[in-house]
Amino acid sequence: METKLNELKSRLTEVYELRCVTALLNWDQATYMPEGGAAARGRQMAVLEKLSHEKLTDPAIGQLLDALQSDEESLPYDSDEAGLIRVARKEFDRATRVPAEFVAEMTNHFSDTYQVWIQARPANDFSMVKPYLEKTLDYSRRFAEYFEYDHIADPLIDAFAMEGYQTETIRGLFSDLREQLVPLVKQVTAQEPADDSCLRQTFPEQQQWDFGLKVIRELGYDFNRGRQDKTHHPFMTKFSLGDVRITTRLKENYLAESLFSTIHEAGHAMYEQGIRVDLEGSLLAEGTSSGVHESQSRLWENIVGRSRGFWEHFYPQLQETFPEQLKTVSLDTFHRAINKVEPSLIRTDADELTYNLHVMIRFDLEVDMLEGKLAVKDLPEAWRERYKRDLGVFDPGDRDGVLQDVHWHFGPIGGMFQGYTLGNILSAQYYEAALKAHPEIPDQIRQGRFDTLHGWLRENIYQHGAKYTAQELTERATGSPLTIDPYVRYLKTKFGELYAL
Amino acid sequence: METKLNELKSRLTEVYELRCVTALLNWDQATYMPEGGAAARGRQMAVLEKLSHEKLTDPAIGQLLDALQSDEESLPYDSDEAGLIRVARKEFDRATRVPAEFVAEMTNHFSDTYQVWIQARPANDFSMVKPYLEKTLDYSRRFAEYFEYDHIADPLIDAFAMEGYQTETIRGLFSDLREQLVPLVKQVTAQEPADDSCLRQTFPEQQQWDFGLKVIRELGYDFNRGRQDKTHHPFMTKFSLGDVRITTRLKENYLAESLFSTIHEAGHAMYEQGIRVDLEGSLLAEGTSSGVHESQSRLWENIVGRSRGFWEHFYPQLQETFPEQLKTVSLDTFHRAINKVEPSLIRTDADELTYNLHVMIRFDLEVDMLEGKLAVKDLPEAWRERYKRDLGVFDPGDRDGVLQDVHWHFGPIGGMFQGYTLGNILSAQYYEAALKAHPEIPDQIRQGRFDTLHGWLRENIYQHGAKYTAQELTERATGSPLTIDPYVRYLKTKFGELYAL
Repeated sequence: METKLNELKSRLTEVYELRCVTALLNWDQATYMPEGGAAARGRQMAVLEKLSHEKLTDPAIGQLLDALQSDEESLPYDSDEAGLIRVARKEFDRATRVPAEFVAEMTNHFSDTYQVWIQARPANDFSMVKPYLEKTLDYSRRFAEYFEYDHIADPLIDAFAMEGYQTETIRGLFSDLREQLVPLVKQVTAQEPADDSCLRQTFPEQQQWDFGLKVIRELGYDFNRGRQDKTHHPFMTKFSLGDVRITTRLKENYLAESLFSTIHEAGHAMYEQGIRVDLEGSLLAEGTSSGVHESQSRLWENIVGRSRGFWEHFYPQLQETFPEQLKTVSLDTFHRAINKVEPSLIRTDADELTYNLHVMIRFDLEVDMLEGKLAVKDLPEAWRERYKRDLGVFDPGDRDGVLQDVHWHFGPIGGMFQGYTLGNILSAQYYEAALKAHPEIPDQIRQGRFDTLHGWLRENIYQHGAKYTAQELTERATGSPLTIDPYVRYLKTKFGELYAL
Repeated sequence: METKLNELKSRLTEVYELRCVTALLNWDQATYMPEGGAAARGRQMAVLEKLSHEKLTDPAIGQLLDALQSDEESLPYDSDEAGLIRVARKEFDRATRVPAEFVAEMTNHFSDTYQVWIQARPANDFSMVKPYLEKTLDYSRRFAEYFEYDHIADPLIDAFAMEGYQTETIRGLFSDLREQLVPLVKQVTAQEPADDSCLRQTFPEQQQWDFGLKVIRELGYDFNRGRQDKTHHPFMTKFSLGDVRITTRLKENYLAESLFSTIHEAGHAMYEQGIRVDLEGSLLAEGTSSGVHESQSRLWENIVGRSRGFWEHFYPQLQETFPEQLKTVSLDTFHRAINKVEPSLIRTDADELTYNLHVMIRFDLEVDMLEGKLAVKDLPEAWRERYKRDLGVFDPGDRDGVLQDVHWHFGPIGGMFQGYTLGNILSAQYYEAALKAHPEIPDQIRQGRFDTLHGWLRENIYQHGAKYTAQELTERATGSPLTIDPYVRYLKTKFGELYAL
C-alpha cells in the first residue's frame, strides 16, 4: 500500500505544482505583464492546463486508485491518506470526463476574453465582449454536458461554487434567505440613509495602502509568505503554502474600497496560509471549495472588519493616518458609514444586506442562459430589468451593469457567484461556533487581539485544507449542516442595532 | 514531409512554452516573490525542467528527426524549416545525453543555492555557499561527463557560452587579446586616472529610473512588449517575443550603475524583440548563443552608450534631469568619467579595458576547478591571489571577491563568463560591419537617431533568432569569422583619443 500511495502522491504533486505555476501566470498577467505578452500567455496557460490535465487523467492514476480502494476503507476516515485518496478519486473522476484538448481550448479562450474585457469595461462597450461571452456560454454548456446532471448548472456549481450543492438546493436556500432579507432591507431603507461622506474625501493612495497592510498584519496575514499588488479586480492567489498573494484596487476618493478589499483577500489568504504545512504539495493543500473560501474572506471583511469593536481598536489609528479627513468624524459616524445600506449598481460596493440580492440576480441570469431561455445579446437588457425590479436602481450603460464583474470574462458561466452568498451564510455559522467556544472573542477584538479567533479558524477550518468537503467541514466545525439561521440572526442583530429597528 | 514537420513544430512549441514559463518563475523569484516561496519555487522549476526535458527527448522527436533527414537536405539551408530541423537535432542530441532526473535535481539545487547566495553575499560569508558550490561543481562535472570532450569544460562552454568554441580555442583567443590589452592598460593607467566624482554625487533613484527608461525608449526598446523591474543582479528575460523584460539595480550615490545596466539589458532585449515574429513559438525564437547575445548588450552599452556622440545628444537632457549635480560638469569631463580606466575588484563595475581581465580570471579558475586542480575551499584565496597579480587590487573579504557574481550560484561552473568577452569581441566586429554599410551611423547617433543602426542589427543579427550558429551569423553579417582585430582597433582608437596616447 505504501509504495502505491507514494506513487500516487508523487504523481499528484506534479499536478499540484503545475496548477500553482498556472496561478503565477495568471497573477503576472493581472499585475505586471505588458500588453504584448497576452497572446503567448494564453497559449502558455493552455499548455500547462493540458499538461496538468494529462497528468491527472493518466490511466496509471486510475489504476492506483483502484488498487488502493480496499486500503482506503481500512484507513481512518480522518487520516490524510484517506483524504488524499478521496480527493484524488473525485478529481480524477471529474477530469477524466473532460478531454484535455477541450480544457486547453477553453483556457485559451478565457485568457483572450479577459484581455477584451479589460478594454470593453472602461469603453462601456458590451458589443466587444458579446462574441466572447457567447463562446463562453457555449464552453460552459459543453463543460456541463460531459457530466450527468439533474440541471445543466449542477456540474458547474459542483466544480466551481460548492461541491455537492445543486441548482435546486441553492434555489431553495436563496429563496429562504430572500424572504428574510427583503423585509429587512425595506425596514432599513425606509429610514434616512447613513451619511458616508466621511469615506468620500481625498485619501492619498500610499497612506491607504500602508494602513491596509498594517491592519492585515495585525489580523495575522504573514508577509514572509505573501505580498500585495495592485490589479483591476482584487484577488487572492497561491503559488505554494509559503507564497499566498493578494491584490487590491485603490480609489483616492473612497476610503472603503481598498481597505475592505484588502481585508477580504487577506481572509482568503489566511485560510491558505493556515493549511497544515505537511499537506504541502498534495491536492489537499488548498481551501475546500469557493463557498468555504468565501466564508473566510467575508468573516474577516464583514463580521470582524465592519464591526464596532474592530474599529474601537483601529479607528484612532485611522484618524492618526488621516487627521485632516477624520479628526472630527466620530467612531459612530464612521461605523455607520462603513455599514451604509443602500441599493446600488455595483456588487463589490454593495452593503452586507443588499449584496446577496446582487448574487441572486446573477444566479438567475446564469441559470437562464444555461437553460437557453436567455441569449447573450439580451443579457444587458435582462440585467437592467432585474436591477430595476430587485434593487430599484437603473443605469443605461453596461460598464456598471453587465460588464462590472470579471467572472464571466475569465471563467465559465455558472457556479461563479453563488459561492459568495453561500460564503456569507457560512461565515456567520462559523463565527457563531467560534464565539460559543470562546465568548471572549468580541472583547479581544476591541483590544486589537485576533489570535483566539484566528486560532479557532486555523484549528477548525484552515488546517484541514481540502481534506473534508464543505458539508463535512461545516458539521465538524459547528455541529450542524449549513443553515441560514446564524446569518439571519447576525444580520438582524447588527442592523437592528445600527438602525434601532 | 509537411505533416511530419508540423508535428515536430507542435511538439517543440510545448518545449518552448515550458521554457518561457520557467523563465517567468525565475523572474518572479528575483523580483517579487516573498521569502516563503523559495522552497516550492525550486520544486516547481524542477517539475517544469523535467517536463520540458521529457518533451524534448521524447523518442517521437528522434523518429521525426530521422524521418526528416532526407527532406532537410533538399530544403534550402537558409529556410526556416531547415533551420528548425538543425536546431531541433542539436538540442535533441544534447538533451538525450542528459537524463531528465539529473536536470531536475540540478535545477532544484540552483534554486536553493541562489537563495543562500543572496544572504551570503551581504554577510560576506563564503562558508555559507561553500557546500552549495561544491555540489555545483559536482553537478557541472557530471553534466560534462554525459558528453564526449577534449577538455572537461568543452561541453559547458558549448552549452552555455558559445556553441562550437572549445576550451583551447578560447585560451588562444584570450591569450591573443591579453597580449594587446595588457600594454594598453599599462599605458592608460600610467596616466592620472580620470576624475569620476561627477558620477558619485547623490542622484535620486526615481529620476535615474525615469532617465534610463527614456534612453532605452529612444534606442528602440519596445515597452508594449516589455518592462523594467528591480533585482539584486540585473538581467534580461523573455516569456514570449511579445514580453521581453529587463531588470536593473539602482545606486543613489553612483549614476553609472543603473544607467549602463539598463542600456546593457535593453541591448539583450532588443535582440529578442527583433526576432521575426513568425518564428514565435519555435526553438528558433531566441538569441543564438550567450556570446552573440552579449555582443548586443555590449554594443549598446559600450560602443554606443559610452561614446562621445551618444552623449552629445543625451548629456544636455541628463543635465536637465540633474541640474544641481551636473550643471557645471562639462561633456568632456562626463565622457571621461564614464570611461574611467582603473583596475578594480568588481567585474560589473569594471571599465571596458580591464573588464576582460576579470573574465579571464574566472575562466582560468573555472577550468582549474573542473580539472580538479583547485578545490572550492581554496577558491577565495585563489581569487584574491589572481586579482592581486592580474589587476593589482586586493580585498580581504569575499563579498566583493568570489561572492560578487551570481553566476556560480545560479548555474553551473564553466561556460558562464566567457560569453562576456566573446561578446565584447563580436560587438566591435558587428559595429564595424554596420558602419561599413552605413558610414552615417556615428553622425546619426550624435543627433539621437538610432534607427539605422537598430535596423542593420535587426536585419543582420536579431531577426534570425537561433537559425544560424554564432559562426554562421558572424560570417553572414561581417563577411569574416570571429576575429579580435576590430575590437582591438576599437579599443586603441577610443582610449588612444581619450588618453592622447
